[in-house]
Amino acid sequence: MTKETLLKLTYGMYIVASRKGDRFNGLIINTATQVTARPPTVAVCISRDCLTHGYIEESGVLSISMLKKDTPLRFIGNWGWKSGRDVDKFKDARFKIGQTGAPIVLDNAFAYLELKVTDRLTMGTHTIFVGEVVAGETFEDAEPLTYSYYRDIKGGRSSKYAPTYDGWGERSGEGKDAERLA
Amino acid sequence: MTKETLLKLTYGMYIVASRKGDRFNGLIINTATQVTARPPTVAVCISRDCLTHGYIEESGVLSISMLKKDTPLRFIGNWGWKSGRDVDKFKDARFKIGQTGAPIVLDNAFAYLELKVTDRLTMGTHTIFVGEVVAGETFEDAEPLTYSYYRDIKGGRSSKYAPTYDGWGERSGEGKDAERLA
Repeated sequence: MTKETLLKLTYGMYIVASRKGDRFNGLIINTATQVTARPPTVAVCISRDCLTHGYIEESGVLSISMLKKDTPLRFIGNWGWKSGRDVDKFKDARFKIGQTGAPIVLDNAFAYLELKVTDRLTMGTHTIFVGEVVAGETFEDAEPLTYSYYRDIKGGRSSKYAPTYDGWGERSGEGKDAERLA
Repeated sequence: MTKETLLKLTYGMYIVASRKGDRFNGLIINTATQVTARPPTVAVCISRDCLTHGYIEESGVLSISMLKKDTPLRFIGNWGWKSGRDVDKFKDARFKIGQTGAPIVLDNAFAYLELKVTDRLTMGTHTIFVGEVVAGETFEDAEPLTYSYYRDIKGGRSSKYAPTYDGWGERSGEGKDAERLA
């Protein structure tokens, strides 16, 4: 029952975005945690297969947009289940450029943080990027979208690039998209 | 407003426990996240000042007990605001010894994971320990205690050893305890 137990850990849902020259990309993650208070640093965990991983490695900056509880599943599908290699996810997005130069997605976000990467730990399929928090803003006192709400109430699944991917049979079309990108 | 924004990240609340020879210790953390799915690995973030940090370094094993939403503040005070250097936190605890030899706290827990440490990243005041999940169990389909519920509803604060410690004026006696342990 270890797989089921792993899903009992509590997470939020975020868009991490970065840039490579003039190109922007971003993806959905559920693993963003503060690491130290002085200086304030935050860690995110990103699949090495994802386009955004390379953007973060090259630019050394990233933004974390915190998603609101009422974020539509379709929006998560666009950011979490499609690859920036196939589509321009920023095409219809509302976003701004942060102090670090990283794009910050504003759609369905109630707050964001901006990080300059200071350290990293590569763990097989994923990298933990740790960055110093150089900026942040809360737009709205909204309830955050949690990973358990996304899964249990909205019926969402994990992409095969997520740390929490369970590798089981897919219930939705999103699963097929993920396979297509493999 | 970056400090306030940092507190908008979503976390659970856990007891991490480990051993050093025949001695057990544990502490409250809010940062436990899955890192990879294959193999299943989980990261926790622990202050280098905490006794449990040394126990994990020495034994290379740890357990993560996931706390239920109705966990009393007093219980969190015992595990999170006292040091194992001063008191035996396991004295009145209900616990079992896991497959790894790590003690697993059962009081107020609805699930647990057991980890063998495979990697670590030291970040100034804290270490991220990453471990392969070798066992886990869910006792009960309970709602987890989240960090925001602990703070906003229960009025709980962060220990100065927590990544999320804000260093602001203390509102409660717990804050004084933390100072005393400095």
